[in-house]
Amino acid sequence: MKISFADLHDQFRQILLKYNFPGDRAILCARLFAENSRDGISSHGVNRFPVFIKIVQDGFVKPDAKPEKVGEMGVVEYWDGQLAPGMWSATVAMDRAIELAKKNGMGCVSLKNTNHWMRGGSYGWQAADAGCVGICCSNTIANMPPWGGKEPRLGNNPLVIAIPRKDGHIVLDMAMSQFSYGKLQEYELRGSDLPVAGGYDEEGELTANPFAIRASRRTLPIGFWKGSGLSFILDVLVASLSGGRSVAAITANGREFGLSQIFVCFDGKNLHEDIIESIIAYAKSSAPAQTGQEIFYPGEKTLAIRRKSEAEGIEVNEEIWNQILAL
Amino acid sequence: MKISFADLHDQFRQILLKYNFPGDRAILCARLFAENSRDGISSHGVNRFPVFIKIVQDGFVKPDAKPEKVGEMGVVEYWDGQLAPGMWSATVAMDRAIELAKKNGMGCVSLKNTNHWMRGGSYGWQAADAGCVGICCSNTIANMPPWGGKEPRLGNNPLVIAIPRKDGHIVLDMAMSQFSYGKLQEYELRGSDLPVAGGYDEEGELTANPFAIRASRRTLPIGFWKGSGLSFILDVLVASLSGGRSVAAITANGREFGLSQIFVCFDGKNLHEDIIESIIAYAKSSAPAQTGQEIFYPGEKTLAIRRKSEAEGIEVNEEIWNQILAL
Repeated sequence: MKISFADLHDQFRQILLKYNFPGDRAILCARLFAENSRDGISSHGVNRFPVFIKIVQDGFVKPDAKPEKVGEMGVVEYWDGQLAPGMWSATVAMDRAIELAKKNGMGCVSLKNTNHWMRGGSYGWQAADAGCVGICCSNTIANMPPWGGKEPRLGNNPLVIAIPRKDGHIVLDMAMSQFSYGKLQEYELRGSDLPVAGGYDEEGELTANPFAIRASRRTLPIGFWKGSGLSFILDVLVASLSGGRSVAAITANGREFGLSQIFVCFDGKNLHEDIIESIIAYAKSSAPAQTGQEIFYPGEKTLAIRRKSEAEGIEVNEEIWNQILAL
Repeated sequence: MKISFADLHDQFRQILLKYNFPGDRAILCARLFAENSRDGISSHGVNRFPVFIKIVQDGFVKPDAKPEKVGEMGVVEYWDGQLAPGMWSATVAMDRAIELAKKNGMGCVSLKNTNHWMRGGSYGWQAADAGCVGICCSNTIANMPPWGGKEPRLGNNPLVIAIPRKDGHIVLDMAMSQFSYGKLQEYELRGSDLPVAGGYDEEGELTANPFAIRASRRTLPIGFWKGSGLSFILDVLVASLSGGRSVAAITANGREFGLSQIFVCFDGKNLHEDIIESIIAYAKSSAPAQTGQEIFYPGEKTLAIRRKSEAEGIEVNEEIWNQILAL
């Protein structure tokens, strides 16, 4: 079914108010959940909303806790999220990184004791909308073995890089696993294999069978040993800089809360726009791998889905929507 | 054969002096070439030295050109490498980023018109030795198709992240392709397949056959579409921020010179060391994927090879060493 952005937003907002979200936070979180579905990321939009409310009910997200600055080192600030809603704290942190960048060329906010930010890309778009290069990263609960091991010890640790651009920002939003557990489940429900190997089976063989990977818990980092190293060092960066929980500490909690994140901005006022356009044109100038295949820059498909949603309404799973109406 | 660090260094230095390198630059470049072989990266050490001298002879590297600051935006500085030796300019740029970070918490140097930095990890170790978190990235000539395409339009674009640590820094140094062309050639010469798929053959099938990949030129980005996006956006970042050449412009030159790079540092004085140690311990606590397999943090194996080289001398290919002696 299709629902308008305004209706989605209004429904989310009213539920969040019922769960004791202060008015401004209810509006912001409702907007981000609605935007995530509008942009085609319903896994962190409509489909996630009931799960989010459950975590609020369980007390791991504190609707009215106030993220606060607890220290600084020049243009680097240390913030404590106090377990406030992750979308709120991430927005506040990126806003502050934008301010620091506008004043000092660049700036950084490290954030501890925060919560899941849903779609990391949201904060990339936020920075780019403000004319800044935005880079941010979060750690997560352990869901991927390190290279050489077979038990989960690394997080998905999404990394976001956004570059402002008049005709549509360039926004990369990628987790460190080849496929998230959510994606594995999607393929499994559809009864189809992954397009490429996504992990190992119980025998230690690479496989594209989502069921076998979910059984072994041996999901694959992007680029094998390379993504394993990148996930590892991003956790070191966000946790040791913020003084917050590492993947290890989050996993020890058993539930995914109290995460560590980092938000870096560069003022984009001196970016060379002609160079950006030439890079896009060059990538698109390659012959297609298969007849008719297109080459997209990061964020291009998101923008196309956004335009479609704006024209036709946002695609929503009816069963989940009914769950939401009952909250 | 084995050669001592001092002998390697001395030989490199004398040759560089002969090719009109000023004394301080001859010492620095000789040191970095020797260190790269010492650390087990001979592809950017001894094995690369004759190729480097050829590029100097061809005039693409200007031994005595002076990198200079051409602008600033707060804690972000814009530098022009003036085609000076890439190892020299990268060291100067990282030194300046360290200074900026010590003064302002963090800082950034963007560098245009520079040259190949050989091993990117060198500058990560440099930042970490100074007690800083160092992050740097370079673009390269096109050597990898973008996702959806089959002609090279993306660079390998190495990314380095280094975290200072008393018992051995954590240093990730990774290119965006699953295997470099150098690695493909190594496997081909040995007559063996790659350990995992490294690209596509002429028929568009994933393959671990290095010969087939070199023939099709369809090397694989790490994580397929993900590494393609990351390589793309890193090029946008380094080129549009510095105002220097993009992968497209470098490739149009036909030879790999005049690159764009970025160097970012955070002062590491407030890093939580106990958290770093707990992350390492947690990763290593996983059961091995195969009996006896070990789990290493990024940089750990480099340090082990360094210790071995220091004790036993540096492993050097005799044929290449004789080429060097004849330069």
